[in-house]
Amino acid sequence: MTALTPAQPVSWPNGKRCAVAFTFDVDAESPLLSTDSAYADRMGTMSHQAYGPLVGVPRLLGILDEFSVPGTFFVPGYTAERHPEAIRSIARAGHEIAHHGYLHESLVGVDEDTERAIMERGLTALDEVAGVRPTGYRAPMWEMNWHTPKVLADFGFTYDSTLMDSDHPYELAVAGAGSLVELPVSWALDDWLQYCFVPDFSGTGLIETPAKAMELWRSELDAMRDIGGAWILTNHPFLSGRPGRAAALREFIAEVCGMDDVWVAGMAEIADHVRTQQLTPRTLTRPDFEPVTAPSTGEQR
Amino acid sequence: MTALTPAQPVSWPNGKRCAVAFTFDVDAESPLLSTDSAYADRMGTMSHQAYGPLVGVPRLLGILDEFSVPGTFFVPGYTAERHPEAIRSIARAGHEIAHHGYLHESLVGVDEDTERAIMERGLTALDEVAGVRPTGYRAPMWEMNWHTPKVLADFGFTYDSTLMDSDHPYELAVAGAGSLVELPVSWALDDWLQYCFVPDFSGTGLIETPAKAMELWRSELDAMRDIGGAWILTNHPFLSGRPGRAAALREFIAEVCGMDDVWVAGMAEIADHVRTQQLTPRTLTRPDFEPVTAPSTGEQR
Amino acid sequence: MTALTPAQPVSWPNGKRCAVAFTFDVDAESPLLSTDSAYADRMGTMSHQAYGPLVGVPRLLGILDEFSVPGTFFVPGYTAERHPEAIRSIARAGHEIAHHGYLHESLVGVDEDTERAIMERGLTALDEVAGVRPTGYRAPMWEMNWHTPKVLADFGFTYDSTLMDSDHPYELAVAGAGSLVELPVSWALDDWLQYCFVPDFSGTGLIETPAKAMELWRSELDAMRDIGGAWILTNHPFLSGRPGRAAALREFIAEVCGMDDVWVAGMAEIADHVRTQQLTPRTLTRPDFEPVTAPSTGEQR
Amino acid sequence: MTALTPAQPVSWPNGKRCAVAFTFDVDAESPLLSTDSAYADRMGTMSHQAYGPLVGVPRLLGILDEFSVPGTFFVPGYTAERHPEAIRSIARAGHEIAHHGYLHESLVGVDEDTERAIMERGLTALDEVAGVRPTGYRAPMWEMNWHTPKVLADFGFTYDSTLMDSDHPYELAVAGAGSLVELPVSWALDDWLQYCFVPDFSGTGLIETPAKAMELWRSELDAMRDIGGAWILTNHPFLSGRPGRAAALREFIAEVCGMDDVWVAGMAEIADHVRTQQLTPRTLTRPDFEPVTAPSTGEQR
Repeated sequence: MTALTPAQPVSWPNGKRCAVAFTFDVDAESPLLSTDSAYADRMGTMSHQAYGPLVGVPRLLGILDEFSVPGTFFVPGYTAERHPEAIRSIARAGHEIAHHGYLHESLVGVDEDTERAIMERGLTALDEVAGVRPTGYRAPMWEMNWHTPKVLADFGFTYDSTLMDSDHPYELAVAGAGSLVELPVSWALDDWLQYCFVPDFSGTGLIETPAKAMELWRSELDAMRDIGGAWILTNHPFLSGRPGRAAALREFIAEVCGMDDVWVAGMAEIADHVRTQQLTPRTLTRPDFEPVTAPSTGEQR
Repeated sequence: MTALTPAQPVSWPNGKRCAVAFTFDVDAESPLLSTDSAYADRMGTMSHQAYGPLVGVPRLLGILDEFSVPGTFFVPGYTAERHPEAIRSIARAGHEIAHHGYLHESLVGVDEDTERAIMERGLTALDEVAGVRPTGYRAPMWEMNWHTPKVLADFGFTYDSTLMDSDHPYELAVAGAGSLVELPVSWALDDWLQYCFVPDFSGTGLIETPAKAMELWRSELDAMRDIGGAWILTNHPFLSGRPGRAAALREFIAEVCGMDDVWVAGMAEIADHVRTQQLTPRTLTRPDFEPVTAPSTGEQR
Repeated sequence: MTALTPAQPVSWPNGKRCAVAFTFDVDAESPLLSTDSAYADRMGTMSHQAYGPLVGVPRLLGILDEFSVPGTFFVPGYTAERHPEAIRSIARAGHEIAHHGYLHESLVGVDEDTERAIMERGLTALDEVAGVRPTGYRAPMWEMNWHTPKVLADFGFTYDSTLMDSDHPYELAVAGAGSLVELPVSWALDDWLQYCFVPDFSGTGLIETPAKAMELWRSELDAMRDIGGAWILTNHPFLSGRPGRAAALREFIAEVCGMDDVWVAGMAEIADHVRTQQLTPRTLTRPDFEPVTAPSTGEQR
Repeated sequence: MTALTPAQPVSWPNGKRCAVAFTFDVDAESPLLSTDSAYADRMGTMSHQAYGPLVGVPRLLGILDEFSVPGTFFVPGYTAERHPEAIRSIARAGHEIAHHGYLHESLVGVDEDTERAIMERGLTALDEVAGVRPTGYRAPMWEMNWHTPKVLADFGFTYDSTLMDSDHPYELAVAGAGSLVELPVSWALDDWLQYCFVPDFSGTGLIETPAKAMELWRSELDAMRDIGGAWILTNHPFLSGRPGRAAALREFIAEVCGMDDVWVAGMAEIADHVRTQQLTPRTLTRPDFEPVTAPSTGEQR
């Protein structure tokens, strides 16, 4: 078994200590529809999800514009088809649009050919709706297969933002296809875990205050500044676009913009910078293991 | 696919910036009985639910009266039949009573004829018990079908308060039947998610403090005042009628009543005002989608 | 359908405004064993539950003694058999011991004869171990059947503490058997919902701070003092006996003992006082309802 | 039934009032793989778990080193095989490595022979990777069988850290094999319950702030100092190794190091000290019980 080795710190432009990216997963109706098509019949739930592109996206774009912060929006292809104006407005405002599946399909147990079909369909949708060809990808629910990086490399993506084994971006080796820049994420930096409740779909029925979410994210950012990694926040417009949450995020963004040691950037911009560092790609391997079996002469139950 | 468009801000009376409604879903025993009739055998759980009309309603009416705040009570027909005095006291105090199903039936997968029968039965109960004919409706668990608005329009309702895709009220187009005023809601403004625990029915076994609930609601209200929408709070008398929660809500209502820019009103009153604005009805559509299928030549698992 | 009517306030001794009882459910291993006998094989879980009588009870008795506060301990018969010294120490210290089932059996769906057998077995255990004959009862998981009050009356109990439909104690009518004093409880005043995690049995995997639990309980008590009811707290020695929680409870008890308007008493003492008021018994009835059925001519799905 | 008796306080070296141990369960991928081998296919989840040895361990070692605090690391054998460098670095830094199963196998329902095979396999891995022979053991998920202590004694372990029935360490009697020192733990002192979310595996989807976790742990420690027991904290590098959490833990460790009455020690060191006290071993017994059965003449349902 080849041992894994940790990623090493990256040096940031202009002597900054830490990179920060504000990313937004514009899931809208997609995750529910790919889980069970019967959700389409639920007008209430569908309206809850549509809040994201209809209300959340314009509000969040306004905040990003106010502070001249580049955002990165991961958009399932179907979200673009159903909410073209919202997605076009993101592109028009100069923000990055990245790939997030077609219908926010879970990749658990999905074979490579199906993944390629999903990838293709998502690219087509983003191209037809907004005229963009994304260079970045994030797997739905931050879960992908060991063959996924090869699929991404074959489609020409520069970076992925799905894995969680590092505070620092790194080059992820792809067998026979060079490498991808990996921009790692963390569950603590996902608004879903603070705010999401969708009956029969997700959430326990507890919703946190925006102040608590900001306290959590601030504690991670303050520590990341000392560590020098990339602090990548993931918000969902159907959640963080709500008035009180957007207002709290706005104040937090203002605070971050006032930090001299922080480089606030888009994900593609960060990936391009990482690429210039010519890092040695890290090889990640599937765990290979053999469970302990009961001794053949032992008493079994 | 016709694209959805967001609702636009409504202007409020007397130069107010924001509308506020305090609404109460008087669920009592109904949601449990419609989920499983065996809950009727649980004397403990039934007593927990009966706390709402028996104790919570008089206490909350006292608070509304103290601040001359008009409340809106969504009442399942069966709740009215089982707790007639509580429901009559709401009407006598001049508050609005609206429709909330007969037995708080989930509408998931329910056909239109059954919905009409539920609607009828709820109307009859509210009429017989309290002599009221509601103009407003809220679907149990904030979930309805794409045919529900037509049912509501046919029964002559003015407004619905179930959907979640806007901060602003709007006119919801109903095919062949004009439109309904929609007064949208939000999970963050529902006391159920802060306080509810009913064994084997709902809740994770965590109960928040009233201070935390008020902090959450205040953060949403403060932001909504800037946005100019309608801030609609939903409380359940069996939950928010408990002493400490009612006391916290009382203080919060006092605070809201001191806000110069806020119009505190009943839901029907808000709907009537919205109607005067002659807004163009929004058309909402069921998501129409086609999942990515595995390529026929691909390896399947 | 006979309408339910709310309980009315009770007047308290010596001009006090509010009654307070600190109650302890000494569940120990019982709730797990009655749920699934296989829990007996889990040495770790069993040790977690045994902490209650072994460590929690002596610690909590020390706190009650320090402030001369009478506690009320609801003890399953099996807990007394397995932990006789802990239960005897409660009796020796002059605190009340009340009935809490034999093996903390859920009464959901249990017939009357089986309930009588459980009642008998619990009484025998408490008598044999500690020589006590309880006058009070609390149903496990605060759940009982409509026939349970009759069982309790037949066994000569004075009071029950299971129901949740009032802030004020009341006389509960028992058909053909007079009445029981009911001392109602509330999920917000139960430490289980703040602290309990037992893998594969209960809890979501979140544990709150003692400070948060105290804030919750204080907010309910402060409001109950204005209302004049009985504020009845339920703690579990296997949970609230842990060092930090016991220390926080100790401070809270000290605070309560300093409140001039509060009568801190044992449950039997409160029940006896309520009985002297010769209240008219309340009749509670099982909800009788008929669901809406789909119209026979309607299209079914 | 032989009654259990509580453990008595231990006197600590140099007049200290309380022992403190910072322990780390280096679970990494193991708990998931032993639950379902299909988790190995999930590259995202595997990367989330690998964060522990790759990033969390070096960071936490740095903090321990900064304050010269001896840590105790419970390491599944497979974790050592997959992440040898991380485990060797723990040993090189002079910290204790203890046994935590081979693949973090749940022992629920596992027979004695299989347990011996697991024990053997874990010992071999720790020996081959890091050249260590642990003297301490902690059962995965803090759950073991009544035969487990005998297995541990036969393998020559000095101490176990799995049970939860005491604030004080004690000698645990092992029939026919002397005794083990037991260093008891508590769910309130486990970072898993504050921070853990792994989709489809563990967690409710709520993540607490580091400040809340520290508040909880501080409240338990402050109380334990008065009680004089052993306060044993359990952190997981894949959780508490994240930047904000590690930073908060660092401050907390600094605070603890400033407490004059606290003895911060490794687990083996504490166990050795306890052993010198020649305590009478406690005998724990499996609960033996007979449920109440429905009377034969009663009406059954």
